[in-house]
Amino acid sequence: MGLVVQKYGGSSVADAEGIKRVAKRIVEAKKNGHQVVVVVSAMGDTTDELIDLAEQVSPMPAGREFDMLLTAGERISMALLAMAIKNLGHEAQSFTGSQAGVITDSVHNKARIIDVTPGRIRVALDEGNIAIVAGFQGVSQDKKDITTLGRGGSDTTAVALAAALDAEVCEIYTDVDGVFTADPRVVKKAKKIDWISFEDMLELAASGSKVLLHRCVEYARRYNIPIHVRSSFSGLQGTWVSNEPTGDKVEQAIISGVAHDTSEAKITVVGVPDKPGEAAAIFRAVADAEINIDMIVQNVSAASTGLTDISFTLPKAEGRKAIDALEKAKGSIGFDSLRYDDQIGKISLVGAGMKTNPGVTADFFRALSDAGVNIELISTSEIRISVVTRADDVNEAVRAVHSAFGLDSDSDEAVVYGGTGR
Amino acid sequence: MGLVVQKYGGSSVADAEGIKRVAKRIVEAKKNGHQVVVVVSAMGDTTDELIDLAEQVSPMPAGREFDMLLTAGERISMALLAMAIKNLGHEAQSFTGSQAGVITDSVHNKARIIDVTPGRIRVALDEGNIAIVAGFQGVSQDKKDITTLGRGGSDTTAVALAAALDAEVCEIYTDVDGVFTADPRVVKKAKKIDWISFEDMLELAASGSKVLLHRCVEYARRYNIPIHVRSSFSGLQGTWVSNEPTGDKVEQAIISGVAHDTSEAKITVVGVPDKPGEAAAIFRAVADAEINIDMIVQNVSAASTGLTDISFTLPKAEGRKAIDALEKAKGSIGFDSLRYDDQIGKISLVGAGMKTNPGVTADFFRALSDAGVNIELISTSEIRISVVTRADDVNEAVRAVHSAFGLDSDSDEAVVYGGTGR
Repeated sequence: MGLVVQKYGGSSVADAEGIKRVAKRIVEAKKNGHQVVVVVSAMGDTTDELIDLAEQVSPMPAGREFDMLLTAGERISMALLAMAIKNLGHEAQSFTGSQAGVITDSVHNKARIIDVTPGRIRVALDEGNIAIVAGFQGVSQDKKDITTLGRGGSDTTAVALAAALDAEVCEIYTDVDGVFTADPRVVKKAKKIDWISFEDMLELAASGSKVLLHRCVEYARRYNIPIHVRSSFSGLQGTWVSNEPTGDKVEQAIISGVAHDTSEAKITVVGVPDKPGEAAAIFRAVADAEINIDMIVQNVSAASTGLTDISFTLPKAEGRKAIDALEKAKGSIGFDSLRYDDQIGKISLVGAGMKTNPGVTADFFRALSDAGVNIELISTSEIRISVVTRADDVNEAVRAVHSAFGLDSDSDEAVVYGGTGR
Repeated sequence: MGLVVQKYGGSSVADAEGIKRVAKRIVEAKKNGHQVVVVVSAMGDTTDELIDLAEQVSPMPAGREFDMLLTAGERISMALLAMAIKNLGHEAQSFTGSQAGVITDSVHNKARIIDVTPGRIRVALDEGNIAIVAGFQGVSQDKKDITTLGRGGSDTTAVALAAALDAEVCEIYTDVDGVFTADPRVVKKAKKIDWISFEDMLELAASGSKVLLHRCVEYARRYNIPIHVRSSFSGLQGTWVSNEPTGDKVEQAIISGVAHDTSEAKITVVGVPDKPGEAAAIFRAVADAEINIDMIVQNVSAASTGLTDISFTLPKAEGRKAIDALEKAKGSIGFDSLRYDDQIGKISLVGAGMKTNPGVTADFFRALSDAGVNIELISTSEIRISVVTRADDVNEAVRAVHSAFGLDSDSDEAVVYGGTGR
């Protein structure tokens, strides 16, 4: 009966009814004997409305002021939530990120937490209060300016507070029941995962699963804070993310799930001289434009020309910037042309069991082949295989792989490995 | 070309267009060589919308959380205003009340400013920035909690900052052209006042004029900060409020204006024993309920019964509370009954010239009498006469008095005094 950090997203507190519902759930945890710290996002569409206002007054809103603006959203939801809890007869106090001791660097709009000093939260808890903390925001160490943490920042706030307060668990409440073996909108037979390791969750998050962001899971793994992802609309158990399996029945699955991602594009640099330093020059140009790339593949050089092609994937949103950066560096790098393709998708199979089960890769390719899906790029890690296909093939590919690995919910059989090389 | 504090109300920044218009005006002041500090209210109806949300989650929103909620409003307007100014090519930084050093007591929802330590504002100005400060809010000295200053709090923020920064002037931008000799909605011939003394402005504010609140004028008088009330929609000069007349042509008028107020009610305590301590007991009971009363009158005691009646006026909103407090104390005070009347209105004539011009009072009563208006209560100060009448008579009474004292705009004549006793 220790300390619990609960995080509620914008869809859980979209209106007054949602806030009252969430307040009841928080009070239940308190009644069960827990000390409760709640991290809350802005209500429903508030953030989008504020962004819209900003764009009306300025085409390029400045970082510092943009953060000041956006943090109004959590201020509203947290104050309302504290009021709703008080109305149920329990004591609650709300705290801004700054008041809660969330110290960040000074990179506005995507600041990183560098320290958490939750002295006021401790005092509030010791006095018997429920503490409500604004997600997504902090205060910069050097200038004492208000900062925001960027996309998924509220989850990171929750995990960081849980770590600083040595919480038993960080509960992430959302509008889905947990983490699934595949996106249930694509795979009807996708199953909720009861437990998943930090490592597998990190790979799923990096491969397109949207339930938890990579950064939040990374933080939880570093401080060994168990995360419980669950629905704020039901009382069901969700998905536990931790180092060790929780519960009696839970065993580590060979395959955790299938993720997909259609937010990337592919750029192919055609006719690159096959000599040392060429690839480095290309990726230096892209990195200097502050673009994160994902997969890379270099074709075998054609002996006759001494030229090769290099392809890589990157977020579609950064496609224009990458093309511009490469065109600018064309003279010094020396290549023929660029090809841009945003009709691609990525399918990833994730599971720590791959390490000890040769044959997973072969089965993966077989499933894709049986489904008539053509593979354009391949990349692997110790516990993940990813392929790039045509965007149109992605949904079919995900379903085929999900089924082939016995993940469909009406099947109790899991695939047994012992086979022929991975 | 010193430091100017400008304050813009909610109607001036009601939407993105309003914010852009205000930004242009601020930049003009900066271009004219001023250092500029801007205090801004929440956009248009934002505060009402937030109050509505609060009432949906809790019938009695708590003080601390209610303040946390409401301060989100200024956070939005100030950030947007800073963005709009930057978009015009000038540097601007926004600051919360706390960041601006507005230190208050801990009385949530109606905190009082006890100190202003604008260190960060000074730095921002010295670096060439325009400083945008959230009105209406501060931080409590003891608990470091967010507080709000109550109604008209943004004007007080502006004057307090002007005092702390030793500003040349505090400009209050609003949706009217300045302070008028009467409410222009009631008196079509009301004239804009070019200059008015702090004292007369204090009496007008206390008597129902809504343009500036008493508390803000009181603060300005104490620190001798000239206030310039003007429209944010036009470039016209407004009304100067200060110790000494400004400009060549301006002279102190004998009568500054006529104010009226229909927000009060009258309570009559009937059958009070006419002995020492009775009135004190009545007003102690009312004061203990934290009710501010305005006018008081005690009738001459009827010799036959030794009983008298005591009447007083108070805000209508507090009528119920006062009746309850008096009923509760009925046994110990000893009176017959209570009468409650909320169909009253108050008309006040204000002007420092009264002190040296006997006859003003007589002319005032003559004007009311000629208009057929019956007087129920009278109270006076050195520079003000107020009467209570039927609510239905108020508009007619205001017009009659305004005209009788030569305040109508098509008349250049002022009334000359030299007459027979006041």
